[in-house]
Amino acid sequence: MTLSPEQQAEIDELRGAAQPTLRAVAPGMEKHLYSAIPVLDHGFVRVIDYMGDDAAICQAARVSYGKGTKSVQNDEGLIRYLMRHWHSTPFEMCEIKLHVKLPVFVARQWIRHRTANVNEYSARYSILDREFYIPAPEALAAQSVVNNQGRGAALEGEEAERVLRYLRDDAMRAYDHYEEMISQDGQQGLARELARMNLPANIYTQWYWKVDLHNLLHFLRLRADTHAQYEIRVYADAICNVVADWVPFAYKAFEDYRMGGATLSATALDCIRRMLKGEEVTQENSGMSKGEWREFVGVLG
Amino acid sequence: MTLSPEQQAEIDELRGAAQPTLRAVAPGMEKHLYSAIPVLDHGFVRVIDYMGDDAAICQAARVSYGKGTKSVQNDEGLIRYLMRHWHSTPFEMCEIKLHVKLPVFVARQWIRHRTANVNEYSARYSILDREFYIPAPEALAAQSVVNNQGRGAALEGEEAERVLRYLRDDAMRAYDHYEEMISQDGQQGLARELARMNLPANIYTQWYWKVDLHNLLHFLRLRADTHAQYEIRVYADAICNVVADWVPFAYKAFEDYRMGGATLSATALDCIRRMLKGEEVTQENSGMSKGEWREFVGVLG
Amino acid sequence: MTLSPEQQAEIDELRGAAQPTLRAVAPGMEKHLYSAIPVLDHGFVRVIDYMGDDAAICQAARVSYGKGTKSVQNDEGLIRYLMRHWHSTPFEMCEIKLHVKLPVFVARQWIRHRTANVNEYSARYSILDREFYIPAPEALAAQSVVNNQGRGAALEGEEAERVLRYLRDDAMRAYDHYEEMISQDGQQGLARELARMNLPANIYTQWYWKVDLHNLLHFLRLRADTHAQYEIRVYADAICNVVADWVPFAYKAFEDYRMGGATLSATALDCIRRMLKGEEVTQENSGMSKGEWREFVGVLG
Amino acid sequence: MTLSPEQQAEIDELRGAAQPTLRAVAPGMEKHLYSAIPVLDHGFVRVIDYMGDDAAICQAARVSYGKGTKSVQNDEGLIRYLMRHWHSTPFEMCEIKLHVKLPVFVARQWIRHRTANVNEYSARYSILDREFYIPAPEALAAQSVVNNQGRGAALEGEEAERVLRYLRDDAMRAYDHYEEMISQDGQQGLARELARMNLPANIYTQWYWKVDLHNLLHFLRLRADTHAQYEIRVYADAICNVVADWVPFAYKAFEDYRMGGATLSATALDCIRRMLKGEEVTQENSGMSKGEWREFVGVLG
Repeated sequence: MTLSPEQQAEIDELRGAAQPTLRAVAPGMEKHLYSAIPVLDHGFVRVIDYMGDDAAICQAARVSYGKGTKSVQNDEGLIRYLMRHWHSTPFEMCEIKLHVKLPVFVARQWIRHRTANVNEYSARYSILDREFYIPAPEALAAQSVVNNQGRGAALEGEEAERVLRYLRDDAMRAYDHYEEMISQDGQQGLARELARMNLPANIYTQWYWKVDLHNLLHFLRLRADTHAQYEIRVYADAICNVVADWVPFAYKAFEDYRMGGATLSATALDCIRRMLKGEEVTQENSGMSKGEWREFVGVLG
Repeated sequence: MTLSPEQQAEIDELRGAAQPTLRAVAPGMEKHLYSAIPVLDHGFVRVIDYMGDDAAICQAARVSYGKGTKSVQNDEGLIRYLMRHWHSTPFEMCEIKLHVKLPVFVARQWIRHRTANVNEYSARYSILDREFYIPAPEALAAQSVVNNQGRGAALEGEEAERVLRYLRDDAMRAYDHYEEMISQDGQQGLARELARMNLPANIYTQWYWKVDLHNLLHFLRLRADTHAQYEIRVYADAICNVVADWVPFAYKAFEDYRMGGATLSATALDCIRRMLKGEEVTQENSGMSKGEWREFVGVLG
Repeated sequence: MTLSPEQQAEIDELRGAAQPTLRAVAPGMEKHLYSAIPVLDHGFVRVIDYMGDDAAICQAARVSYGKGTKSVQNDEGLIRYLMRHWHSTPFEMCEIKLHVKLPVFVARQWIRHRTANVNEYSARYSILDREFYIPAPEALAAQSVVNNQGRGAALEGEEAERVLRYLRDDAMRAYDHYEEMISQDGQQGLARELARMNLPANIYTQWYWKVDLHNLLHFLRLRADTHAQYEIRVYADAICNVVADWVPFAYKAFEDYRMGGATLSATALDCIRRMLKGEEVTQENSGMSKGEWREFVGVLG
Repeated sequence: MTLSPEQQAEIDELRGAAQPTLRAVAPGMEKHLYSAIPVLDHGFVRVIDYMGDDAAICQAARVSYGKGTKSVQNDEGLIRYLMRHWHSTPFEMCEIKLHVKLPVFVARQWIRHRTANVNEYSARYSILDREFYIPAPEALAAQSVVNNQGRGAALEGEEAERVLRYLRDDAMRAYDHYEEMISQDGQQGLARELARMNLPANIYTQWYWKVDLHNLLHFLRLRADTHAQYEIRVYADAICNVVADWVPFAYKAFEDYRMGGATLSATALDCIRRMLKGEEVTQENSGMSKGEWREFVGVLG
């Protein structure tokens, strides 16, 4: 991971300067502020700011449900109750702002989560740096033979070498040409907004990304999932660790009810009831398709 | 305005306890934290939390526009530039959380602004308090005779007295019956979620409302406007004062470009050009309808 | 249910005039167009327009997943796959526009679903009609004694009569005073935007509500649920019938995976695995709280 | 522009098959359905579906404002009034669904408009086609020397040739290597989700994009503007023509109030008032910065 010297100087300055505030402070989060968490070969996640903590979730819920929440004894119990029953608005009362450096093809997946605020580095205005994601050998995966969007084992030997050579050489050449095209030494220089079109999708971009906790957890559920593409999952994993320090009760409930949980169909629930009564249930008599049955068996693991 | 003793105790406790943070702190905002700003007869606005300041707007813009923003000398200039050219995303990087107590008919207008997070007191779970908005004599306005949604002068004499008597008596009677219906003394007691339907729209509710600065300014532009209903305008005015202390550069730019500005049509701009050339422009030769012309003359004041 | 004579005339005119279109047409939906489906004592749901059908969901999915979706044999299988794996964007490609007449306290719940477009009748501009929701005897439920937001059995005898008398008399009196306050016979007349505050929450309002199918199904999952308040559930039920005619495959998948399904936590899944192995699992050794366990037993019912 | 044979066959089939519907039909729009409007060298815009027309905007507005809108004589006058006073919700009652083929760097700008529904072709699942945007000679613009994000005159002679050669050769080589990397002839074959990272930003992608009229007009205001990048502006221009045929009154009002209009600050309005009184106003005594003054003079131009 590479922070520019200016970015490092900014971090050092900011981390030196604690100020008093009357707002809610999440102690576990202060340690993350500004420090860059390395992800992939040149990327990072930095916490720029946050609002609220576990108590803020409960405070908002208690405004809604008034005396109705008094019966829940404590904050952790209340948070588990809210998560279990899909009460999303109290979790929206916490907010986080991250600075993320990431490859463009990852950014294109990420941005599909619409309920967030984004300021991305603009290659219309400014010149991109010569930084490209090149997979580590163990991440150089083959196409899955069973799944259109999945990965198989890592490539090996000559095939792996050739792929890495293509990725490296094409990126370097594309960047050389990018520089030559925009250069104004002895020529007009192509507009930046055009020249960028020559750059491949593994070039790094960066953005500020601000999102509320409810929508962040939704993002993490999809992107920290084992079916997510590895290159976005490592970002999601890094953010999971941050969230665990920020709102520990909410994160634990999220792990239990979302990450580790599963949604079962009416048909699947019925199969479980039959199985618990001792009936032999098979795909054929389950009412499920083969694909569904395979997933069902996977859940019951 | 009435804070409950519990709410006052909570404020006192929270205001006493400054903690160190590495996050951006807006000094003008710390003084507002938790303190209730009275609005109408029983309402209030309280700042519960905030994220960011004027510098945070610039920091996000500089991520986007990179070296492109270096030419703007200072933060205030950059913020004015962003506001003038409708760059909304940097303003989305600031966030505020308010606790608001307000009459239901005001809440119904307010909630139409969808890009915000809300936790409202639930009358399904809990019992509403006996607090109703009764307009002050000077706010007891007649229906405008020129405008379907406007107000005329204040009612006077017997008519004013009768209106106030109706509002007060009907509210008290409705609340008496609400209490009787839900009472479980010697009867089953009607479900709260049903009993609340007897309560008029001037009863007070309360909510936590969290919104980013861009969407807040959009709300304020519409609701602090002279055409907004007085009862929501006073909330918008109170929030304007808070925003001016929070992000003074952004607020000043907002006043110049939004609150005090005007959008002119192609036709109106053409009329101005003709007038500046010395031509006599009238409604008849302007290309505008009577209504448009009246508004145009109002803008040129 | 009461349609005004103007509304009925409009329906008659519109239903008479089929025109040719090249767009996707959902035969099951054409029969619903404009016809008002009665809900509660004076409310209704009317389909004003729709976009797309089951085939449009698949068409959009096939753009995304290209040849990847060819392996799924048919539209119904593909829709079930999309629903099971929470692919929301193809369902967003269908849209519906409804005209709904509903009590204000129902509208206040409904509007919390933010991802929709709404045009509500404005009581600032116009005068509300004298129409109030008065519960049918069987819907006049007592407060639940076990659940803060629930309902118990219907009230009976003198208590029921007294409640109905209060609701009717208070509504009539409030409306009489509303009319007197805004009247301009021999007086100035209170502004409509103020007078409306005297009206109780069981008065009817109406709006146009436009929403995509994904967000509509989310709404229906929450509001057609047995825990939803009866007065909004009857609207959700009416809309469920419309959706079943509009996109039958999507609706059937929704019933199986959402309405009839359940999300189980990691802990709950673990308990099921233990039970299937023959272990005796009780609340004490389940790792669940009493509340969770009660819900878990309910699901396995 | 290249439609695949399958796409052309689909168009031909769909255009042949008019069916009766009771919904609102916009005659000007039916002719656009499915036909691909060519944009850039390989891109297109196709109307897949639409909901509503000018009359639907008025119908929704009349629900809101009731008798208050009767005073506006006709639909066109009402639409102009709504547009002038920023009433956005009636315009949200119309919806359009487009199929768009566009270069990835254009897609990256486009997707920043969040209030829309999108299904994009997935290069995780499927293999992208060998189609790249190569600018026409007159679009091969130099970087502006006065504006960080602007364009100057077209490149000429050897410089132009060199740029085109780089763009073409790098795209072809990148695609050759993409194909070789995913090939499973005698090797494992790199996962598609990884191989795509080698492709430059001028490769074409495609998506279904569905948006309401209010948000579409906002998109068009920004992207059909002279400051927008040429490569997205040509898409916006193509859509403008479609909208003009779909909702002619709304489009005309949009042209007058948005595209041809301008928002002036309080300071600028004050300057106009002074000028109309005969005062000599210069940048120095205007209260504006040099940049603002330049823009102000441009508006009065």
